[in-house]
Amino acid sequence: MISEVFITCAVTGGGAAKQPNVPVTPQQIADSAIEAARAGAAVVHIHVRDAKTRRGSRDPALYRAVVQRIRESDVNPVINLTTGMGGDLVLGGADSPLPPDPAGTDMVGALERLVHVEELRPEICTLDCGTMNFAGHSEYIMTNTPGMLSAMAARLKHLGVRPELEVFDTGHLIHVHELLKDGLIDDQPLIQLCMGIRYGAPDDLTTLMAMVRHLPPRAVYSAFAIGRMQFPYVALAPLIGANVRVGLEDNLYLSRGRLATNAELVQRTIEILERIGVRVMSPEETREKLALKVQV
Amino acid sequence: MISEVFITCAVTGGGAAKQPNVPVTPQQIADSAIEAARAGAAVVHIHVRDAKTRRGSRDPALYRAVVQRIRESDVNPVINLTTGMGGDLVLGGADSPLPPDPAGTDMVGALERLVHVEELRPEICTLDCGTMNFAGHSEYIMTNTPGMLSAMAARLKHLGVRPELEVFDTGHLIHVHELLKDGLIDDQPLIQLCMGIRYGAPDDLTTLMAMVRHLPPRAVYSAFAIGRMQFPYVALAPLIGANVRVGLEDNLYLSRGRLATNAELVQRTIEILERIGVRVMSPEETREKLALKVQV
Amino acid sequence: MISEVFITCAVTGGGAAKQPNVPVTPQQIADSAIEAARAGAAVVHIHVRDAKTRRGSRDPALYRAVVQRIRESDVNPVINLTTGMGGDLVLGGADSPLPPDPAGTDMVGALERLVHVEELRPEICTLDCGTMNFAGHSEYIMTNTPGMLSAMAARLKHLGVRPELEVFDTGHLIHVHELLKDGLIDDQPLIQLCMGIRYGAPDDLTTLMAMVRHLPPRAVYSAFAIGRMQFPYVALAPLIGANVRVGLEDNLYLSRGRLATNAELVQRTIEILERIGVRVMSPEETREKLALKVQV
Amino acid sequence: MISEVFITCAVTGGGAAKQPNVPVTPQQIADSAIEAARAGAAVVHIHVRDAKTRRGSRDPALYRAVVQRIRESDVNPVINLTTGMGGDLVLGGADSPLPPDPAGTDMVGALERLVHVEELRPEICTLDCGTMNFAGHSEYIMTNTPGMLSAMAARLKHLGVRPELEVFDTGHLIHVHELLKDGLIDDQPLIQLCMGIRYGAPDDLTTLMAMVRHLPPRAVYSAFAIGRMQFPYVALAPLIGANVRVGLEDNLYLSRGRLATNAELVQRTIEILERIGVRVMSPEETREKLALKVQV
Repeated sequence: MISEVFITCAVTGGGAAKQPNVPVTPQQIADSAIEAARAGAAVVHIHVRDAKTRRGSRDPALYRAVVQRIRESDVNPVINLTTGMGGDLVLGGADSPLPPDPAGTDMVGALERLVHVEELRPEICTLDCGTMNFAGHSEYIMTNTPGMLSAMAARLKHLGVRPELEVFDTGHLIHVHELLKDGLIDDQPLIQLCMGIRYGAPDDLTTLMAMVRHLPPRAVYSAFAIGRMQFPYVALAPLIGANVRVGLEDNLYLSRGRLATNAELVQRTIEILERIGVRVMSPEETREKLALKVQV
Repeated sequence: MISEVFITCAVTGGGAAKQPNVPVTPQQIADSAIEAARAGAAVVHIHVRDAKTRRGSRDPALYRAVVQRIRESDVNPVINLTTGMGGDLVLGGADSPLPPDPAGTDMVGALERLVHVEELRPEICTLDCGTMNFAGHSEYIMTNTPGMLSAMAARLKHLGVRPELEVFDTGHLIHVHELLKDGLIDDQPLIQLCMGIRYGAPDDLTTLMAMVRHLPPRAVYSAFAIGRMQFPYVALAPLIGANVRVGLEDNLYLSRGRLATNAELVQRTIEILERIGVRVMSPEETREKLALKVQV
Repeated sequence: MISEVFITCAVTGGGAAKQPNVPVTPQQIADSAIEAARAGAAVVHIHVRDAKTRRGSRDPALYRAVVQRIRESDVNPVINLTTGMGGDLVLGGADSPLPPDPAGTDMVGALERLVHVEELRPEICTLDCGTMNFAGHSEYIMTNTPGMLSAMAARLKHLGVRPELEVFDTGHLIHVHELLKDGLIDDQPLIQLCMGIRYGAPDDLTTLMAMVRHLPPRAVYSAFAIGRMQFPYVALAPLIGANVRVGLEDNLYLSRGRLATNAELVQRTIEILERIGVRVMSPEETREKLALKVQV
Repeated sequence: MISEVFITCAVTGGGAAKQPNVPVTPQQIADSAIEAARAGAAVVHIHVRDAKTRRGSRDPALYRAVVQRIRESDVNPVINLTTGMGGDLVLGGADSPLPPDPAGTDMVGALERLVHVEELRPEICTLDCGTMNFAGHSEYIMTNTPGMLSAMAARLKHLGVRPELEVFDTGHLIHVHELLKDGLIDDQPLIQLCMGIRYGAPDDLTTLMAMVRHLPPRAVYSAFAIGRMQFPYVALAPLIGANVRVGLEDNLYLSRGRLATNAELVQRTIEILERIGVRVMSPEETREKLALKVQV
């Protein structure tokens, strides 16, 4: 068990924005992130959305607007930008899978997925470590091949931006170990165990413990589960040495039938952690622990 | 622990044929399968290969030649044909993933992947339950979306061919549970736990036990690992209630530096099982256990 | 995961009363149990203590005084009396283990350990399922042989008092399965997994999951850990299908350096459970779930 | 997985000698140990028996006769003497547990349990790490309190005899960690995981993995299970980094209905290990690995 953790708030995802509190515009996303930081989140994990479709976007202007607003605010959370966008592949259907369906597909080159990171230099950005089926608004393949991962990790190393390696199943940790062996990531890698996402690892404790067992020895890691398992995982994470993540990307409810805001989710998280005797780290303490490089 | 198991011999895969004993032509594949059956394999799992490139093929004529020769032989193993071919996606590289690279890509519709099964009516064919990175002769994506799996399972149900659901990581079992819930597979599904394949579940016992824990309650299952873990898994499988699989698709060596034949791998498997007190089932006993339908 | 649990409060143990809030006299014990029930505990687990030595006692008069006071109160929790007393064996030392040291030894016959249960007919009493080293005020052997367990279980069955089978290590569950096979306990046995007690099972998740795996299929169970792991286990228990237990028998602190009362521990427990979305059951709901027989 | 292991043969236990091949007299025991060594056992684990009752004995003259005969033979296995005798406590029955039943009880001081070790100076002797119910010829308590363990370990350290720490359940490893912390055992302790013994840890893989997880980081360890699980554990042990133990103390059969000799059990063990690619170590290699001190 660990006695102090940092909280990441994943303020908005890239899928359908299914409840009114899910922030959509840059201003909404920034404001929700700022409120989450005020509530106690040390890290804010950011996607951006197209204002019209309300779906996830890769537009650097949107990221820029969010990041600037957060940076100009009176709080200073660690900013963690997604790089997951641009890896969505929707095939043409069971009968004729190729060519891919242009309607849902958003596949670009490894470096193009980092354009917003190059410009905005967040302290952290994610790196999704694997390829798997996903069931979102429609079924798609989350696509991250070994070649893409190497290219992205090499560029992030050059930029000095720390990747948060997101793993969604036991085999995804092999990518982590390969990046480590190839010297493309830090030997104290930052890892996020993403549990209970459909077609990825289920959120039971046996599977979780199997994944923890395969972490690199010096890893700093978080673990979360989605939906109604979000809060139980807040209590579980410190027991297995993990930091915590909550937020509207992963769970929409404060309790059964009661829609949440990001700040409420963070506040509730702190209430749980305090009651089980776990201290919550500040952004500055988190920066020090993760040896983050502020570049802006 | 179970006290009797059936042995599947995976006589040749679809990747590079890396040692001289790996059968390539239909005659070689059939003969190797026949020898494996004589040695004690109840089930022979079959891929076919292009004689020139020596790589995996989907050509129904090749399957036909293999199956006829086995059926005309003096042994009568259960025939299990792969349906994995036709789901290989090679992207255009880290910088421009789309369009896919036609050189390595072989992606066809769900039903086209079953053409040889429609014609030859084996008692079993595989169904790979998931999408993931693969590191074979070159890196590719093994592609099996929920839509493809449903279409293939529905057709197999209609044909009366029993699918062997191959799972390569913990999340792949979600596909099994969904097919089960949708009534597309038998409520005593036949499952193969494929361990230690790069970018899939590692072959350690903790991960294996996590997967076993999520099997449907009435599943009949096998488990194997590749390379030098093939034989240790022969002894391990009955301990966790699993049947065994060996063969040149998964492992090329009888012992360090000593190339194997399929018959030798099966013979060694039987020697191990006998010595730990586990009886080996005949093809007829296996047919009865799996409620297979001979249709030809 | 289960969505509702009952809380047991273990109000005072039999070891040294190490902080001022630990109740000692019957009046103190009853009052503390009553406050715990008011705070939300459905079950109160009761030991009694000698007022002079402040150590655990088996005196029926003390149990009687506690039980009467609780029964006359305005709350009606399920009463769970210990039967652990009378099984303490202190050997004569490493050099001459026999005869036992009369100073610490308190070993009586199986039925004599039930005298207070015979008289007071609580709805539940504990049955410690195993023999092991214990490190309390001094080192002693917690002694419960198969013969003792059978004799006690048979008598409890006759009395209609439901045993709570306390297990302290993986092998103790064998006693549970033997009692079940012998028809001496209900086929929906009530089990308490006691974790982190010195010389018993450690409180890590892997060991816990190994124990859960061996529970009888229809068991109703709780799980707790001692010391600073008490509250983390409150959050963990519902995740593994378990009800919760807290109380000064197992943990003296509300937080680092802050001594607790039983009512405070229960209140904190409810705060945690509410925040992870788990409902707390009332005594009446617990009686129904456990099919308890009120006999008085 | 480890690629080479040493084999311990437990040639005869202390319980009833249930089949004719179980050696009873010193000559029989020595001869059986010699044959086991010739078959490939690097270590022979020795109990002695009273020729009349055929039950276990602590008589130093019997140990002396066995050890001398082995030492004068043409093989030179590592000798491992039990110190388990002298810790058997049979209570007076469920109704009147004290005084103990002199008929079955054999309880002596810690140092008296080492008399034969003091005289004969084997390279290894066992140290049973815990107290628990045992179901042998009759039910008894295997008694090893923390005080006894400290006294025995301290004496063995002085003598330069390496203890093999036998653990029978998860909590027993706490004794190992305490002895380690107190400097009473080597920081590369030799540990035996004893699985499937009634009232101790069951022999399933989940429990086994929980125990492996708690081993001291530099431990050298073996693992075995009894009865029909003896041979499956031979194959399993190297997978979890463990050496192997077989012998008539733990299992009487070579296969269903076919009584074994110790040499046959060892021979079978080697056949299994060879077939899964694990090399068997010689006594000299084992001595080097365990840093044993030959003192005679």
